[in-house]
Amino acid sequence: MEFDHLGIAVRSLSESVPVFERTMGARASPPEEVQSQRVRVAFLEAGSSHVELLEPTGPDSAIHRFLEARGEGIHHIAFHVVSVNASLAELQERGLRVVDRTARPGARGRRVGFAHPSAHHGVLVEFVEGP
Amino acid sequence: MEFDHLGIAVRSLSESVPVFERTMGARASPPEEVQSQRVRVAFLEAGSSHVELLEPTGPDSAIHRFLEARGEGIHHIAFHVVSVNASLAELQERGLRVVDRTARPGARGRRVGFAHPSAHHGVLVEFVEGP
Repeated sequence: MEFDHLGIAVRSLSESVPVFERTMGARASPPEEVQSQRVRVAFLEAGSSHVELLEPTGPDSAIHRFLEARGEGIHHIAFHVVSVNASLAELQERGLRVVDRTARPGARGRRVGFAHPSAHHGVLVEFVEGP
Repeated sequence: MEFDHLGIAVRSLSESVPVFERTMGARASPPEEVQSQRVRVAFLEAGSSHVELLEPTGPDSAIHRFLEARGEGIHHIAFHVVSVNASLAELQERGLRVVDRTARPGARGRRVGFAHPSAHHGVLVEFVEGP
């Protein structure tokens, strides 16, 4: 299973994007708003995967709550899968907890779904479909 | 700059390795002790990069302190670089804080070096040389 991206919670895209651009020697994509998650995101290429920087757009965002509780830092890892629904179903068959029972729209027009951090030793795992 | 691996702090390799093996559909490498960091680690392939699970070998391990403070979860991200020393020097020239001023021995016989989390918005960044 391949990495799709690594999600990093930040307070401000405008402050953090230049720092990661310089260290990684990559240009970030133009910021995109993901309404279902109340975030604005920007992606930086890292070989065949990406770093995603996530800024909350309001206090009802899970990223806002994460920042309040833990501060800025790594928020989730995302793996490429053939079918988000099949991957979520497989976890539930193993008795593992999920955040999403079925896929929902994510950034970059992809279908995504999240497992609960308790399923993977504190790691919030996201599944992302194609392309 | 390419991902080398993502490091995850766990209390027990024997408990966590089977969970990640099953979700990722990959076999973990045999556990290896990294004396300089007081950890035992196992790697799982994720496309061209890896997931590294880290278990502390004693209370003087940074991973032990991380687990006490925050519990299990994502600990660091590692990028592939040509020269760890050059990457650490470049950060210092930018006025960013580093944990290591020069490379030191890491897992899998690689030379590694860490930036301080404050350098990258709360993200602990590791640089890894070759192969």
